[in-house]
Amino acid sequence: MKTECCAGAFATRDRGLGTVDFPTVKWDRLFAKRTELMRRSAIRELLKVAARPEIISFAGGLPASELFPMERVKEALASVVDRVGPRSLQYSETEGLPELREWIAREFSPCRGPGDESIPELTVDCGLGTVDSNRGLVTSSPTISAENVLITSGAQQALDLVGRVLLDEGDTVVVENPTYLALLSAWRPLGVRFVPIGSDANGMRVDELPGIIGRHRPKLVYLTPNFQNPQGTTLSLERRLTIMAVLREHGIPVLEDNPYGELRYEGESLPHLLSLDGCRTRPGPDHVIYTGSFSKVLMPGLRVGWIIAANEVIEKLLQAKQAADLQTSTLSQHLVLELLSRGVREEMLPVLLKNYRKRRDAMLSALERYFPSDCTWTRPEGGMFLMLKLAGLDARELLPEALRRGVAFVPGEEFHLNGEGKETMRLNFSNSSPDRIDQGIKRLATS
Amino acid sequence: MKTECCAGAFATRDRGLGTVDFPTVKWDRLFAKRTELMRRSAIRELLKVAARPEIISFAGGLPASELFPMERVKEALASVVDRVGPRSLQYSETEGLPELREWIAREFSPCRGPGDESIPELTVDCGLGTVDSNRGLVTSSPTISAENVLITSGAQQALDLVGRVLLDEGDTVVVENPTYLALLSAWRPLGVRFVPIGSDANGMRVDELPGIIGRHRPKLVYLTPNFQNPQGTTLSLERRLTIMAVLREHGIPVLEDNPYGELRYEGESLPHLLSLDGCRTRPGPDHVIYTGSFSKVLMPGLRVGWIIAANEVIEKLLQAKQAADLQTSTLSQHLVLELLSRGVREEMLPVLLKNYRKRRDAMLSALERYFPSDCTWTRPEGGMFLMLKLAGLDARELLPEALRRGVAFVPGEEFHLNGEGKETMRLNFSNSSPDRIDQGIKRLATS
Repeated sequence: MKTECCAGAFATRDRGLGTVDFPTVKWDRLFAKRTELMRRSAIRELLKVAARPEIISFAGGLPASELFPMERVKEALASVVDRVGPRSLQYSETEGLPELREWIAREFSPCRGPGDESIPELTVDCGLGTVDSNRGLVTSSPTISAENVLITSGAQQALDLVGRVLLDEGDTVVVENPTYLALLSAWRPLGVRFVPIGSDANGMRVDELPGIIGRHRPKLVYLTPNFQNPQGTTLSLERRLTIMAVLREHGIPVLEDNPYGELRYEGESLPHLLSLDGCRTRPGPDHVIYTGSFSKVLMPGLRVGWIIAANEVIEKLLQAKQAADLQTSTLSQHLVLELLSRGVREEMLPVLLKNYRKRRDAMLSALERYFPSDCTWTRPEGGMFLMLKLAGLDARELLPEALRRGVAFVPGEEFHLNGEGKETMRLNFSNSSPDRIDQGIKRLATS
Repeated sequence: MKTECCAGAFATRDRGLGTVDFPTVKWDRLFAKRTELMRRSAIRELLKVAARPEIISFAGGLPASELFPMERVKEALASVVDRVGPRSLQYSETEGLPELREWIAREFSPCRGPGDESIPELTVDCGLGTVDSNRGLVTSSPTISAENVLITSGAQQALDLVGRVLLDEGDTVVVENPTYLALLSAWRPLGVRFVPIGSDANGMRVDELPGIIGRHRPKLVYLTPNFQNPQGTTLSLERRLTIMAVLREHGIPVLEDNPYGELRYEGESLPHLLSLDGCRTRPGPDHVIYTGSFSKVLMPGLRVGWIIAANEVIEKLLQAKQAADLQTSTLSQHLVLELLSRGVREEMLPVLLKNYRKRRDAMLSALERYFPSDCTWTRPEGGMFLMLKLAGLDARELLPEALRRGVAFVPGEEFHLNGEGKETMRLNFSNSSPDRIDQGIKRLATS
């Protein structure tokens, strides 16, 4: 009997016509159309190489895990088991734990956090009449309640859910260029069209937005106003005020992605777009969908993030989340709550700020020291990344040599649309000591 | 100044034409088309009512959390923190922890678990020639390696990812009728068409499959062979052999969803479809995508599940997972590994089997005792559910009265396609003590 392919129990048959081999499944003909739009993340593949100990990696976006307060975590875990008991390991609500949603709502209530106290007097002519920031802002901050909050499995899931709920094939989304790579990965399979707007040291060039809206009628704008990934740049206050005015004029929502906002090493905190989004006729946000995370100030391995949005948006996101994974890890959520209530977040933040500031400074000094004057780089006031621009060199072509010399980065082209950014590279400074940063930049300069 | 709507900083403008109020966002016009196909899970809404302490709830699908070995969990968590350290809270690979993927691959390797030893001699004429189960099966079990395994955020995410990667709008999926509700929730927004095949005490009526394939040319078959949710029924060995023969004949893949498989209280374990899916020309599965979970034997609040599939399918699922949530909780995965290596799963399983068997028996006895002879119900050999069929009554209409009497269930219609199942209700027996089960069934019988 001929048994070449799948010749197990059912792989051959004989109906008097001789033996027929059944073929294996042709998976490539079965994948959905959207699957062709999926790609492996170049970063996550690169990280596997970069994880070798001899490599100084500026490639990832990892927090400094040596700064995690492991003893505090151990106490908190024991307390969760003792205090919450079996409930901490049982199924829980899709929305997230009520106490955690309430904690987040309180953090974003008016007169808390950046958004009110720190706003300087500023009058902006944004083409829609004159706006007085200081007078208007307090009355325009929305009241956020737990009903406006959905807990997600990290902020990445938040981005994915927003895409699922809002974006149809053919819809247009405005993004900064360059923008967050995993946002593109999440939304590209939906068949959306990305319209990039260039950026400078003050973030997205918001002055181009009205023209883009006129030409493309976008469904949504995506923006990381603080210490953007990959550039580390921050959207100026004037541009924040302008963008909200423009979006309100046109009734277009914005996704404000703010994973790094608290990691500010210098300068004044600027108000969230969310805090400029109040509506007198009803509570909660209006145009802004805000996504946040416990990955950068607590720990990313817990996978706890959140979305703040208008009630009717949260209702749909909740349905999408039920289908996506039922709920976020109950244990992770209880651990986050326990860490918050023990003040571990407040303890961690100054430690992170002190260390990351040193690391950023070490990278900026090393760039100054080792790189020629025709190269340029961003000077982030916070976050975890900066972007280096080479003079006339293709960063992707440089990468193999850099890896041979023991240093890793991500070619900036990955984050760009329209094939731009070939000369750029993204450098992470949060996950290496100042000494290794100096050594790594030196290796990079001689690659 | 008129400030009715959104009259914050930017809500009004004056261009010499008087004041204009900006409207709030019209979210209902912005939602994607797929969002119209999303629904809140009736079960999860019902569970909120059923959570009141005076209610005996047969509505949820919760494991018995009082059986969770909390001291063992506490030790395991402390050990993870001490042994793994900060890595246990850091980002980790999208694929899942290598050790966990290897553990799963070993569990599913040939000659392990149900699939080989327990298969009786059986010869099946499945219309494709005569098949000898015993001779063929050993050679046809695929070799599963870690590359065939993707860790997911619970088995629900596994279902969602498979849908994303395989199903286009208009594709046809064959499901048992009734079927798992959250599968419908996950895949309905993709715009797929479900073609139901009826079932009996031996599971899906596989004899109807060839006809359905001829008429509908399905992309995929979805099946829970063991102790199906909602009926608790199990696909017979003969039907398992037949379905694999039919699917191989037509080159159609099957998603084998097996969350309950280990919870068998009587009878012999039957081979997974996966174990009937070997191919001599290459390792790994061919037609079968298998989804499993640590939710039922360890704890659901950890949200750790997995998919086993052919390499090229795993590759695409991995890309979808990167976009969906980057990775499953690192801490949850390390805790699962630690519990596995400490033998906690082997300790828990007999405890669960003993208790759940008692609860199932209590429910079956109570049904016998309190329900009239014109009602019928399934007699599951395992799992967490059975299905009760009333004689000429609409279960949905009965629900308010049942809740008033302090007992909750899920109307079976929820799980059915084609508007069938109005007389049925799904009853969960894993999450109530035998006494409460008796009392609850009594209350139900008098509702």
